[in-house]
Amino acid sequence: MTELPAAHTSRLPQPGPLPNRLQLTDEGQLRHMLTIEGLNRTLLTEILDTAESFANMNEKAVKKVPLLRGKTIVNLFFEASTRTRTTFELAAKRLSADVLNINVSTSSAVKGESLLDTLRNLEAMNVDMFVVRHEESGTAHFIARHAAPGISVLNAGDGRHAHPTQALLDMFTIRRHKGDFTKLKVAIVGDILHSRVARSQIHALNILQTGEVRVVAPRSLLPADVEQLGVHVHHDLDSGLQDVDVVIMLRLQRERMEHAHLPSEHEYFQRFGLTARRLQLASPTCLVMHPGPANRGVEIESAVADGPHSVILEQVTYGISVRMAVMSMVMGAHQS
Amino acid sequence: MTELPAAHTSRLPQPGPLPNRLQLTDEGQLRHMLTIEGLNRTLLTEILDTAESFANMNEKAVKKVPLLRGKTIVNLFFEASTRTRTTFELAAKRLSADVLNINVSTSSAVKGESLLDTLRNLEAMNVDMFVVRHEESGTAHFIARHAAPGISVLNAGDGRHAHPTQALLDMFTIRRHKGDFTKLKVAIVGDILHSRVARSQIHALNILQTGEVRVVAPRSLLPADVEQLGVHVHHDLDSGLQDVDVVIMLRLQRERMEHAHLPSEHEYFQRFGLTARRLQLASPTCLVMHPGPANRGVEIESAVADGPHSVILEQVTYGISVRMAVMSMVMGAHQS
Amino acid sequence: MTELPAAHTSRLPQPGPLPNRLQLTDEGQLRHMLTIEGLNRTLLTEILDTAESFANMNEKAVKKVPLLRGKTIVNLFFEASTRTRTTFELAAKRLSADVLNINVSTSSAVKGESLLDTLRNLEAMNVDMFVVRHEESGTAHFIARHAAPGISVLNAGDGRHAHPTQALLDMFTIRRHKGDFTKLKVAIVGDILHSRVARSQIHALNILQTGEVRVVAPRSLLPADVEQLGVHVHHDLDSGLQDVDVVIMLRLQRERMEHAHLPSEHEYFQRFGLTARRLQLASPTCLVMHPGPANRGVEIESAVADGPHSVILEQVTYGISVRMAVMSMVMGAHQS
Repeated sequence: MTELPAAHTSRLPQPGPLPNRLQLTDEGQLRHMLTIEGLNRTLLTEILDTAESFANMNEKAVKKVPLLRGKTIVNLFFEASTRTRTTFELAAKRLSADVLNINVSTSSAVKGESLLDTLRNLEAMNVDMFVVRHEESGTAHFIARHAAPGISVLNAGDGRHAHPTQALLDMFTIRRHKGDFTKLKVAIVGDILHSRVARSQIHALNILQTGEVRVVAPRSLLPADVEQLGVHVHHDLDSGLQDVDVVIMLRLQRERMEHAHLPSEHEYFQRFGLTARRLQLASPTCLVMHPGPANRGVEIESAVADGPHSVILEQVTYGISVRMAVMSMVMGAHQS
Repeated sequence: MTELPAAHTSRLPQPGPLPNRLQLTDEGQLRHMLTIEGLNRTLLTEILDTAESFANMNEKAVKKVPLLRGKTIVNLFFEASTRTRTTFELAAKRLSADVLNINVSTSSAVKGESLLDTLRNLEAMNVDMFVVRHEESGTAHFIARHAAPGISVLNAGDGRHAHPTQALLDMFTIRRHKGDFTKLKVAIVGDILHSRVARSQIHALNILQTGEVRVVAPRSLLPADVEQLGVHVHHDLDSGLQDVDVVIMLRLQRERMEHAHLPSEHEYFQRFGLTARRLQLASPTCLVMHPGPANRGVEIESAVADGPHSVILEQVTYGISVRMAVMSMVMGAHQS
Repeated sequence: MTELPAAHTSRLPQPGPLPNRLQLTDEGQLRHMLTIEGLNRTLLTEILDTAESFANMNEKAVKKVPLLRGKTIVNLFFEASTRTRTTFELAAKRLSADVLNINVSTSSAVKGESLLDTLRNLEAMNVDMFVVRHEESGTAHFIARHAAPGISVLNAGDGRHAHPTQALLDMFTIRRHKGDFTKLKVAIVGDILHSRVARSQIHALNILQTGEVRVVAPRSLLPADVEQLGVHVHHDLDSGLQDVDVVIMLRLQRERMEHAHLPSEHEYFQRFGLTARRLQLASPTCLVMHPGPANRGVEIESAVADGPHSVILEQVTYGISVRMAVMSMVMGAHQS
């Protein structure tokens, strides 16, 4: 695994040159879903439009279409995440694909098999898609770069680099409620530095030409060069929330607290926790979002997480539809 | 999880007021399967009749019907039980449903997610049914009370409160062999106090108007108020077996032995173990039942467990059919 | 588990009398797949021919046929092996069967259930096939001997006795490249003593009337009576490789090193590691095979494992097809 880039600095992880050479076909169709970065507005919109049709289907009595019948999708999880694995597994099954769940840490790693050997072996079984989750930034790219032609790779979270399907479901949720992005003010609050979710969201919001994107965090939880991403930086939650149409709260990993020079969850909540009182600073129709699972009383008050502004559970619902859209599109790209 | 009732006394767990408000629709159809208690004879008979058709199908070459195609069933197991999970998984697959197995202790609990958060998240994925197993009495009720409309909850065992599908498969097995319940004498032998199975069996036998229901156990393994359930109490196995048509042996959890003031498995077997010799006290056509897995040489002699009176493996077979019946009926209730 | 034969000597494990009484029907059709030993050339060829049709299907866009729709296949793994389990799971799903994965060490064994009890319970659920992996030689035979009529057992590796589907996929790979076996020289190199794979390969090569079969290993890694299997023994790799058409490298279990009086992996590689230089001793069109996962730098050099002679990944590919062939044939035998 020494081929994989490390991610121990406070700089932005570099996705490597020209990710779209990798994730798009020559005709510009989606072949892999590795990162939001570099996608164009047309393609992003096409994904959201495709997800729209699946969102309708997921409310029907029979939630199943034969689009990927006879395809084999492998959930290749090097990092345990029942939540994320479940959403991809459900999306695949509702497309009628066969699903294999492989938790790598507990299997071939025991026999000392390398990542590339694992990959080559699964490819040899004529699988069609890898859904990859790994704690190291760049693993999904690495796998896509080495995968056989005809195999698609979906990044289900790699280190602190990217979590593109999470960002897509967030965009889908915002679009369903707000329509046009160009007039919106969106604030992302919390541990931006360590968040693959935040990075993917910022790229997506920019591509969709969002009116204003803010990041709100203590200095110690922001990348040193965060302004390069085209965001407005706030170190104070009250100013960051002023008149926003959407606020996206990030999950605070408890183990990061120390790094942030925050002696307690209580102090973090005092400074950066979203409360009903603070939410009054935002637009009256402000959406409250969170990638889940929320730390109630740390980054968000229960009254807000469960309140009328919250669309947190809708995000989960649309997550299935967005993943179905991406899965069917990457398979379509291979067939054309 | 502080909302859940504890179960540390030797009194009967209280199922809460009016369970049928929860588990039946206004038209009296089965919406959840939480407990046998309070169901009427007509509905119980309808379940057994429905199971009959699946029992025939399970002997065919193609054991699959498309009844629940496009439905998503979640096995939500907070307590490991491969046996029970397997029977529900198989029942769901033979109904053509998609199945998700989620072992909660090893997943979201790690991230500190609460039971309600887990529930809300899975609901948001448009799942249709939860099969719940939990070591605390009342968890399945709790989940049913909080579940979204349109979602069914099946209790696959909660603490020492109930295990309704086990009782249903027992009734199915008895009915196949004996027909009418009103003339039957049935003895349940062993650790009644800690057994969710026993409690559900007693309710089912009473509802089906069984001639006589006996419980046979040392005082220390009986609830203090067991007579309230309408059973005859025996502390001596020989008297308890006299002329019975069915004897249901319970599994003795080794960790309960101490509580029962029984110094050894050997002594338990001497007093309450079912042997071929003792079985001669029962009716010559007596059925021997056990929910499995049997402790051979503790509560039952191998010669009896594998002998001509034993229907233990038939119970397993009918378990699939009964679970298919319950699954299809609760889904039908939602569609009507 | 005291019924199972132990395997602690350096003699060949004895498969028991007349395995084909067990694995063939009276008409000579395949009912179980327990061991290659004793199968005739016609049947082996029929398996390879059947696999041929699935090999074509596995390259199509829709890799699925309804042959085993409504059948239940249980992966009963007493020894963890994600790789092997995955290939059987995929084969079953592409035949449209329902699959249950049961890891016995972590389930019923906890409750003290015996192997026979586990078997009887699963049978009672009307399952159709067991795929068995166990660290003790003879377990698959034991299960086949006790299984109900109508249930097939596939041996996915038992102790150091047999791994028949691995040998079949090896034969399939050789036949695809070389056609006729009668002119071929095949060398099997490495830890013959502890290898279930080697034993099955030798039987298969003999049945297919391979021109010459060699085993190459230090004395300490060969069974004392290996010549009885009809092979030529070499203790020197250079002489063993001379003019061979196929070389099959075995995986060296690190824990065996001590037993082989080999102080280090480096020394093993010096004496028995396959390098590009050494491969020049073989035929110019020699195939290099390995059951995987390869220990690069221990039994094989990376340049060879990934080189032009290597068909290691093809073996994986054909493994799916061969398992589909065996699964459909044993089910067909039951239907006739």
